[in-house]
Amino acid sequence: MTRLDRQIAFLMEAERLRKIERSTPIGDGSRPENSAEHSWHLALFALVLGEHGAEGIDLNRVIRMLILHDIVEVDAGDNPIHGNVDTAAQEAAEKKAADRLYGLLPEDQGAELRALWDEFEAEETPEAQFAKALDRFQPPLLNLATDGVNWKLYEVTPEKIERRIGRAVERGAPGLWSWLWPRITGFFAGTSAR
Amino acid sequence: MTRLDRQIAFLMEAERLRKIERSTPIGDGSRPENSAEHSWHLALFALVLGEHGAEGIDLNRVIRMLILHDIVEVDAGDNPIHGNVDTAAQEAAEKKAADRLYGLLPEDQGAELRALWDEFEAEETPEAQFAKALDRFQPPLLNLATDGVNWKLYEVTPEKIERRIGRAVERGAPGLWSWLWPRITGFFAGTSAR
Repeated sequence: MTRLDRQIAFLMEAERLRKIERSTPIGDGSRPENSAEHSWHLALFALVLGEHGAEGIDLNRVIRMLILHDIVEVDAGDNPIHGNVDTAAQEAAEKKAADRLYGLLPEDQGAELRALWDEFEAEETPEAQFAKALDRFQPPLLNLATDGVNWKLYEVTPEKIERRIGRAVERGAPGLWSWLWPRITGFFAGTSAR
Repeated sequence: MTRLDRQIAFLMEAERLRKIERSTPIGDGSRPENSAEHSWHLALFALVLGEHGAEGIDLNRVIRMLILHDIVEVDAGDNPIHGNVDTAAQEAAEKKAADRLYGLLPEDQGAELRALWDEFEAEETPEAQFAKALDRFQPPLLNLATDGVNWKLYEVTPEKIERRIGRAVERGAPGLWSWLWPRITGFFAGTSAR
C-alpha cells in the first residue's frame, strides 16, 4: 500500500462515524444527532466561539482536535454523558479503537493525529480544555431547543448538569457557562411549575 | 442581543445543515449523505491529505473554509454536481443565503467568515483550489464504495466525471487525481463488461 492508499483507507473507515447515534436530538427534534454531524458542529463552534477560550490558545489545534475527537466511536460507540457507563471499560475500548484506526494511517501521520486525540482526552492543555468545554456546551443547546426531551428521558436534574457538564464548560470557557446556566435553571423551573 | 447571543443564533441556524441531503450515498449505501456530515468528512480530508496540496498552502485556512463551505445550503439547498441546475439562479440563492446567515453573527465576525466562503467560491487562491479539489474528490470515493448506484442514477460517464470533477481535483491536488482516475475508468470498464 502506498502512503496515499493508507490515508484513504483511514478516511473511508472514519466515514462510518455517521452511523454512530448520540443521545442528543438534532435541533428540530426529528432524530438523534450522529457523531459525524456533531464533530462538524463542534468545529464550527470553535471557529465562532474562539474568543471565549483562554487568551492565547491555538484555535487551529482546537479545531483539529474536534474534527478528530470522536473517531474512536467508529469501533467503541458513543457513551451518553447522562447514561450509566463503565468508564474504565469504555476508555479501554476507545484506546483499542485508536490503536486500530490511527494505525491505518502512515506511521508518522498516525502518531501525529493520535497525539492530538490523546491531548484532547487528557484535558490538560488550554486547547484540550476549550475543546472539551465546547463538547459539553453544545448538547444542552440542542436539549433546550427540543424542550428537554432527552433530559426527561435520562431523568436529568440541574445538579446533574452542573456536575457532568458545568465544571468542564466553566473551566474551558467560563463566559459560555455564565450564559448557559441561567437558561438551564430557567428551563427546569418552568418544567416543574407546569 | 449580546455578541454571544448572535454567535449562538448563528450556530443554531447553521445546525440545520444536517437536514440537507446530498445526492451521494454514505459509505454503506444505506442513505444519502447530508451536508453537515460531508463538511466534517472534508475537514478530515484536509487534515489527512494536506501534503497533496500545493507547497506552502495554509492548511488551517483550508480546514476553516471546508467547515463553512456548505452553510449557505441551509437556505439554498444542495446542487448535485451531476444534476442539471440553473447555475445563475443557484448562485444568486447562495449569495442571498450568505447575506442572511453570516448576517446573524456580530458584524466583524460575519464579515471575516463570509470572506472565507467568498474565497472558497472564487477558487482563485491555492487554499480555495485545494479545498475545492477535496470537495470534488470525496464523492467519487463514496460512489466507488457503493457500486456507483448514484452514477447510474444520473447516467454519469467517465467523460462527465473528468469534466465536472477531474479538472478541479487535478488543479488543486494533482496527486489525488492520478490516484482516482484509473479507479474510475476501471470501474466503468468493469460495468460495461457485465
